[in-house]
Amino acid sequence: MKPYAVTSGRKFSLKAYDSDETGEYKKTDQGKDKAKADTAKLIARLAGLQERLYANATRSLLIVLQGMDTSGKDGTIRNVMYGVNPQGCRVASFKTPSKDELAHDFLWRVHREVPPNGYIGIFNRSHYEDVLITRVHGWVSDATVKRRFNQIKEFEELLHENGTVVLKFFLHISKAEQKERLEARIADPEKRWKWNASDLEERKLWDGYVQAYEDAISATSTKHAPWHIVPANRKWYRNLVVAEHVVEALESLKLKTSPGPEGVDFSKIVIE
Amino acid sequence: MKPYAVTSGRKFSLKAYDSDETGEYKKTDQGKDKAKADTAKLIARLAGLQERLYANATRSLLIVLQGMDTSGKDGTIRNVMYGVNPQGCRVASFKTPSKDELAHDFLWRVHREVPPNGYIGIFNRSHYEDVLITRVHGWVSDATVKRRFNQIKEFEELLHENGTVVLKFFLHISKAEQKERLEARIADPEKRWKWNASDLEERKLWDGYVQAYEDAISATSTKHAPWHIVPANRKWYRNLVVAEHVVEALESLKLKTSPGPEGVDFSKIVIE
Repeated sequence: MKPYAVTSGRKFSLKAYDSDETGEYKKTDQGKDKAKADTAKLIARLAGLQERLYANATRSLLIVLQGMDTSGKDGTIRNVMYGVNPQGCRVASFKTPSKDELAHDFLWRVHREVPPNGYIGIFNRSHYEDVLITRVHGWVSDATVKRRFNQIKEFEELLHENGTVVLKFFLHISKAEQKERLEARIADPEKRWKWNASDLEERKLWDGYVQAYEDAISATSTKHAPWHIVPANRKWYRNLVVAEHVVEALESLKLKTSPGPEGVDFSKIVIE
Repeated sequence: MKPYAVTSGRKFSLKAYDSDETGEYKKTDQGKDKAKADTAKLIARLAGLQERLYANATRSLLIVLQGMDTSGKDGTIRNVMYGVNPQGCRVASFKTPSKDELAHDFLWRVHREVPPNGYIGIFNRSHYEDVLITRVHGWVSDATVKRRFNQIKEFEELLHENGTVVLKFFLHISKAEQKERLEARIADPEKRWKWNASDLEERKLWDGYVQAYEDAISATSTKHAPWHIVPANRKWYRNLVVAEHVVEALESLKLKTSPGPEGVDFSKIVIE
């Protein structure tokens, strides 16, 4: 696995990352099949790791998914989180904020959705929208964005210090790939429900989004809450990379079998 | 599939249901394997049905899981909901109410967790605990319980009238089966985290729980929010029965491909 993790924002540039890349896997049907088989093995490991996370209830995992429209946030959840126990997994999709949410600081609605001990939490979009879409459209000043970068870093540090592993993924697609995916969304009646009138307008702001992402990733990549730049033009490679990092993160916790409730002498219990 | 649905509480008795039953499946390794293969087929259908539910976002499904300790509520979620997209599925586990929850009516904390349009909601325990554990321990009067039965019926009717399919499952195990499962929980270090000091005390109240369940099921079985008495001594048969009913409920909605956003002429969209 190539190093996709960004743990420091110094000299970060998205141009250095190829959205079409597939690492050690060939860009052929064979490469794709091998990647899919490897992903399936990772997902099988995920179930056991999640159960141990849930049983211990001492740590948690937060997965943040960001990327341009059609970059595959929904597809990543469907394909990588297939097989996790929904009892220990919560997905929060952040859409246009409500009036009540806008009447609070931008982290308020996000903080309420962070995973409790034992859980995997997935953010489909996140607090990063408040330094991305808001910035590209000029709804917030540069000074506000700069302040928010610091607020985000401190918020994620709080989560880390409380035992939450924070994994942030930028699903990196090319502008040409987005065109194909939007066209597929229009052409396939089964996909039309995902069409959003704003998709076309947002696409015109592509360069602004690239800049906003570069700045956000530069400003908020830390050792404890790294970004991962996932080559996402090929869905099968995207799924593999995300699965690999999720499994790695859970394994790094080195959780043991949960000891069970304290002070119970299991040898003395008799059930009648 | 035998008729496990209870749509009217008249003359209901739990004794008429055999917790050890396996329907048309033999109680052999062969029968078990066949049931597991059939369950896998049902689960594969579930993913597509859920996606259509999510895409249309016009209806929702609420699954209520109740049963004695060790009856398999967690296992049912893990084994049957394996493969659903966690983005469209929310599990709410109702434990001892908090002070804030107790300061409200008993349906308050439950109402907040009902699935929105497009979602599958799973209640691991539910509002029924307020006419079960509370009653068996004498924390509430019979008059309160009787009033709550009506309140529950009206609450579930509200959900039904709003487009939520309400499926209630009683996972039916025998007292002997519970003994074995509690012993397994003690014996296996991987399962000890599930041990609860109250498990032994609750077991002593078995007969009281049977009576409380009979009364609750009698009082709250309706056409629109039926109970299903699931033979649950054999986990593989329990999973099959629940999967079958969930798939049937989603299919009965006859959801078509979502038309997508209104007023969009997809033939006129050009992506540049």
